[in-house]
Amino acid sequence: MIQTLDVHTPAHSYPIYIGSGLISHAADYLRPHLGSRAAIITNTTVAPLYLQAIETACRQLGTDCFSIILPDGEAHKTAESLNHIYTSLLENHADRQTTILALGGGVIGDMAGYAAATYQRGIPFVQIPTTLLSQVDSSVGGKTGINHPLGKNMIGAFYQPQAVIADTDCLRTLPAREFSAGMAEVIKYALLGDAEFLSWLEEHTPAIMQQQTDLLAQTIYRCCQMKADIVGQDEKEKGIRAHLNLGHTFGHAIEAQMGYGNWLHGEAVAAGMVLACRLSEHKGYLKTSDIQRVIRLLQTAALPVCPPKFDAGTWLAHMQHDKKTKPDKSGWWFCKNWDKPP
Amino acid sequence: MIQTLDVHTPAHSYPIYIGSGLISHAADYLRPHLGSRAAIITNTTVAPLYLQAIETACRQLGTDCFSIILPDGEAHKTAESLNHIYTSLLENHADRQTTILALGGGVIGDMAGYAAATYQRGIPFVQIPTTLLSQVDSSVGGKTGINHPLGKNMIGAFYQPQAVIADTDCLRTLPAREFSAGMAEVIKYALLGDAEFLSWLEEHTPAIMQQQTDLLAQTIYRCCQMKADIVGQDEKEKGIRAHLNLGHTFGHAIEAQMGYGNWLHGEAVAAGMVLACRLSEHKGYLKTSDIQRVIRLLQTAALPVCPPKFDAGTWLAHMQHDKKTKPDKSGWWFCKNWDKPP
Repeated sequence: MIQTLDVHTPAHSYPIYIGSGLISHAADYLRPHLGSRAAIITNTTVAPLYLQAIETACRQLGTDCFSIILPDGEAHKTAESLNHIYTSLLENHADRQTTILALGGGVIGDMAGYAAATYQRGIPFVQIPTTLLSQVDSSVGGKTGINHPLGKNMIGAFYQPQAVIADTDCLRTLPAREFSAGMAEVIKYALLGDAEFLSWLEEHTPAIMQQQTDLLAQTIYRCCQMKADIVGQDEKEKGIRAHLNLGHTFGHAIEAQMGYGNWLHGEAVAAGMVLACRLSEHKGYLKTSDIQRVIRLLQTAALPVCPPKFDAGTWLAHMQHDKKTKPDKSGWWFCKNWDKPP
Repeated sequence: MIQTLDVHTPAHSYPIYIGSGLISHAADYLRPHLGSRAAIITNTTVAPLYLQAIETACRQLGTDCFSIILPDGEAHKTAESLNHIYTSLLENHADRQTTILALGGGVIGDMAGYAAATYQRGIPFVQIPTTLLSQVDSSVGGKTGINHPLGKNMIGAFYQPQAVIADTDCLRTLPAREFSAGMAEVIKYALLGDAEFLSWLEEHTPAIMQQQTDLLAQTIYRCCQMKADIVGQDEKEKGIRAHLNLGHTFGHAIEAQMGYGNWLHGEAVAAGMVLACRLSEHKGYLKTSDIQRVIRLLQTAALPVCPPKFDAGTWLAHMQHDKKTKPDKSGWWFCKNWDKPP
């Protein structure tokens, strides 16, 4: 069964299609969103798996398309890759009627979305996320961008896609470790105040880990819906949207200190959520039994629940660079007096 | 007398302050728009003239500021300069509470505005345009961006400032040729359907060329108001906003073929408007006497009214790259059969 979630943003509304077999029937889902030309942006890992299916769909729709294939990985989410995209768009005479199709995980989605936001001051784009992380997290919210040598995601824009096509079949080709990393964000949504979804997830995570299709689609739908609700209240991250960063301030510090790619983003967020829970416990907001529940769920999803051991100064140095930083005495106090990592 | 024009955009409303002495009393105008930190982005020509006044204003307001001084000229409106801005913002720990002050002409306004649009996905900025062109044209409309080696203004975003401070005193330090180039855009507004403003301008252009302060302020106010009306109807340039490009399709071709900087943008637009008028005459929309009136006004402002001589293929090649290009048989026919340049 294919589910469609309509996301409403100040700019426009767009559908997220979720289910099995979407890429093999891509023409059906791309039809309302493609004009005469398309630029498919993907990477060397995803291209051999799904590029041909998307090219075929374009051909079926009479859309003239060309591809831009980038190297895979966070290390390539740079100004150089972005410039390669711009040059290729210009060499292929892409205009404002050209649609960018972002085919890949979060890195491709962020970069292709940012290229769409800034090429000729904005052209349409469609997300085709191929990882669990990007399906649950990048499909909603309009965050696009690239890294700068001095900071991750420091350059970017809020820019909304015309549509998102989240095919659960893609997840079969995803390494187990990356699937787990995506589950970290899923669990984050369950922790953001939806007790019913948390219980449901505790019951079904073993089957989700086996990639049972309907459960997967329901999970993705529920996460996208929660994110859409939150982003709808605060598109530009001035208030409640910061909740979506549960575990991310610690998580970003882990990623940065360990070197990007050594800990996957979702793994760092998993350990970061445990730390955030311990901070809450320390401040008297959470019970130890609640934390045990979180840890058990993360472990069922094969995620790390202990951070690497850094000294307090290292944590502080990274956390001060977080975009959402607002000095908070009690928070810093906790870090400064950190002698026993949880 | 200081005039204030309030511009309403979908994102937010902002004031344009227009008049004499604004920079020497900058603290009064910056007060509502500055937080704890500011980054002043300017160039090597403007810095010796006005940077100190803006730094003093920041100091008076208790705003901690630092400056980023770029080389002057369109040749530096590049990804390299932009990256220099990002690096400097990061090295100075600029955050989302830091305001960018764009102090300079169109190039600084476009680049600093684009840096503000994309640094940490958007931080506030205030325009302090120091040329006539940027005061009448860049103050309204939210177009920001940089050039790409394969095309001018190909990378950019629509992004609105918090305020614009247009000090007519700045124009006294502007070379005469650049003042004239700004007048080309002023005359463009008069041609966009406001017969009364056109007559007023025909009467007052000699005094405006002498920089009579009140007339200058009235002129800038009227142009910003007209642009705000048009942009208000069509922020993202899907329809009527294209009118603002009167003369620009020909003008961009002249700039590109002659090499940027050899013909100033306004000079190319002046000759481009004459060509556009001739095209209208050819199609039966304008009388020869109307064109004579346009030419006379441009000449009063010391602007060129004849384009350089290119063959038809050269014009076509450049005009096909225009972002607003939509094939139009009669238009192309006119170009293809161009044997006598006007």
